Amino acid sequence: MPRTEPQTVLILGGDGFCGWPVALDQSDRGRRVIIADNLSRRKIDADLGTSSLTPIHGPDARLAAWRALSGRSIDFVDLDASIGFDGLVGLLEEYRPDAVVHLAEQRSAPYSMLTPAHRNYSVRNNVMATQNLLSAISQSGLPVHIVHIGSVGVYGYSSKDWTMPEGYLTVRVPASAHPDREVEILHPFEPVSVYHLSKCLDAQLFEFYARHDRMRITDLHQGVVWGSQTRLTSLSDVLINRFDYDSIFGTVVNRFLVQAAMGHSLTVYGTGEQTRAFIHLPDAVHCVNLALENPPAPGQRARIRNQVAECLRVVDVATMVATQTGAEVSFVDNPRVEDARNSLAVANDSFAALGFAPTLLRDGIWQEAVGIAQRFRASANPDLIQLDGRAQCAGEPL
Amino acid sequence: MPRTEPQTVLILGGDGFCGWPVALDQSDRGRRVIIADNLSRRKIDADLGTSSLTPIHGPDARLAAWRALSGRSIDFVDLDASIGFDGLVGLLEEYRPDAVVHLAEQRSAPYSMLTPAHRNYSVRNNVMATQNLLSAISQSGLPVHIVHIGSVGVYGYSSKDWTMPEGYLTVRVPASAHPDREVEILHPFEPVSVYHLSKCLDAQLFEFYARHDRMRITDLHQGVVWGSQTRLTSLSDVLINRFDYDSIFGTVVNRFLVQAAMGHSLTVYGTGEQTRAFIHLPDAVHCVNLALENPPAPGQRARIRNQVAECLRVVDVATMVATQTGAEVSFVDNPRVEDARNSLAVANDSFAALGFAPTLLRDGIWQEAVGIAQRFRASANPDLIQLDGRAQCAGEPL
Repeated sequence: MPRTEPQTVLILGGDGFCGWPVALDQSDRGRRVIIADNLSRRKIDADLGTSSLTPIHGPDARLAAWRALSGRSIDFVDLDASIGFDGLVGLLEEYRPDAVVHLAEQRSAPYSMLTPAHRNYSVRNNVMATQNLLSAISQSGLPVHIVHIGSVGVYGYSSKDWTMPEGYLTVRVPASAHPDREVEILHPFEPVSVYHLSKCLDAQLFEFYARHDRMRITDLHQGVVWGSQTRLTSLSDVLINRFDYDSIFGTVVNRFLVQAAMGHSLTVYGTGEQTRAFIHLPDAVHCVNLALENPPAPGQRARIRNQVAECLRVVDVATMVATQTGAEVSFVDNPRVEDARNSLAVANDSFAALGFAPTLLRDGIWQEAVGIAQRFRASANPDLIQLDGRAQCAGEPL
Repeated sequence: MPRTEPQTVLILGGDGFCGWPVALDQSDRGRRVIIADNLSRRKIDADLGTSSLTPIHGPDARLAAWRALSGRSIDFVDLDASIGFDGLVGLLEEYRPDAVVHLAEQRSAPYSMLTPAHRNYSVRNNVMATQNLLSAISQSGLPVHIVHIGSVGVYGYSSKDWTMPEGYLTVRVPASAHPDREVEILHPFEPVSVYHLSKCLDAQLFEFYARHDRMRITDLHQGVVWGSQTRLTSLSDVLINRFDYDSIFGTVVNRFLVQAAMGHSLTVYGTGEQTRAFIHLPDAVHCVNLALENPPAPGQRARIRNQVAECLRVVDVATMVATQTGAEVSFVDNPRVEDARNSLAVANDSFAALGFAPTLLRDGIWQEAVGIAQRFRASANPDLIQLDGRAQCAGEPL
């Protein structure tokens, strides 16, 4: 499939942490952009008593500021994709998008494990948003390319003897009456939370609709995102992107940066020898665009790309932040059910082949360390960072 | 795990085609039985304009008749498990069942493909019934054994070089820097309908909860069921089980039996060389009991048993029914997206090891041919059987 420029892009979840910078980036490229979002991430903050370190503005203010700065308009539609099948069909008919970026999912593993209600919500919301979208596109008959953000964590973090390939694994099936046969299968899943489980369910939906309905689908298996701003979100304080540092929605690098800015020690769970995959937020936004411009052909299986820059141990991340900031590192009991240490290697050939040259944490952490976390440290809520290990995943089985 | 007798069994979907005979069987064994059902199968009949060939009675009449005949009581609770999380928790706390038989799912592949609304309903209903049940049991802390009816169709019907194992497949992963490594994986799925897809999603949920919450789960991968009555449903016309013969809910053998009873030719889709797995209804009920009495231990992965007696080509099934009844066989265009022919071999060692000796179609078809279909042929609706191939899966992409 040759490189192609989508003209119109619908972004489900375009008010969120990844969705908002993706929306600005797509609009900046001169594409017609429509955000559909039910503001669930803001409502979850209200429920949990958490908030973004950066003061984020409402969608109307953001879009007016963007219009004033860029001369470009983004439409906003209040829609819950998990229950809004008819609304999705209406949007497809009205805008006839070339592509849909699907970010309309609950994105926190700890949140998904808080209580049975959070488990059920995470499954229902994520599975039904995906099913409704696939079903609405099938109904519309439009050749829409779906770009979905999944997680590289769907494969779990038990050490494996092989480098994590991009979605598919070639194996040999020992057959009794035949010579062994090589088959390419969806890489087996081993989710460690209900959130990750919901992404496995998505993958099964994508496999079906790509095969049965010849739908064009890209599933981006993203690593842990660090950083919070892009060139465009930094243009004005009204455009600023959210920055989560609590133990439910804050990812590890961002939590460390706020802890350092507040003079708190960096709290590493367990041994810190857990290895995870990472990517810088501006790189994630760039990769979404590369995916949009390089869709699979109809009839191809879902295209899975690992959206990952590097794999690092948590203790090494802490050491890098400590070196930049002078913070101390402290080890706390691990509240999560996970191996104390694991090896991890993740292929990212697919984006490399499209020219993606990632920012590594060791090169970018300095700028983050003197950036947003320092600037807004006075607004940080000490209750959200001074947690001992055990309280941080309340309700998760230990 | 030694053989164990459950004392109390909760049956979700106990008003349905498999659920009702399972409920009677469990009650007959002296166990306390509770049926939870929202009567969705009866409501779907009302929506589609279909109905059971056999006149079925309401739950109250059925349970009163059973009480009068057997002296045993079955409780009935009107509950939609897909939205009734609190109701499920309440039932678990009130009855403290040793086991839950989970049949609270939309069970027809053609129904799941009728329209986008039917697709969405099938995913939402089946996934959320399963998620709510797992979540409610996790919440209750009770050591409940779940027995779920899945489908052997989750693996698709493309010919494979190997006999379908019972849920798990041992493969070799060619690793670059290591000797090849053998791993046992969930057998890859290749669902052919949204119904089958929903069972794949269930399997992923079971894998997670068995591993993460140490839940005891048996997933029965059932073949196509033929027959409609058991010894107990035949005790009284008030206890009679439903018999579907339409092209949406009727399975192939039962459709052929009604076509023969009405003097219609047996309509074989396509070449008839599609091979499928089959089981007789009384055998399915027997297998559910064997599964209930042989639960996996906590911490074991979900136990998957193929609930299958034999594999047959559709044309061979038609020939057997034709031989018994004198009906003709006619071939119609295949309305389904499927291979014209396939080979299929399915292991059923797990139930064989528990003493299961299945009734084969060639031995049991005579009794079915002179039985229910003949007796009720006057009530059959010709519109439901005189369908050409194309109309039978209206809305399914061809």
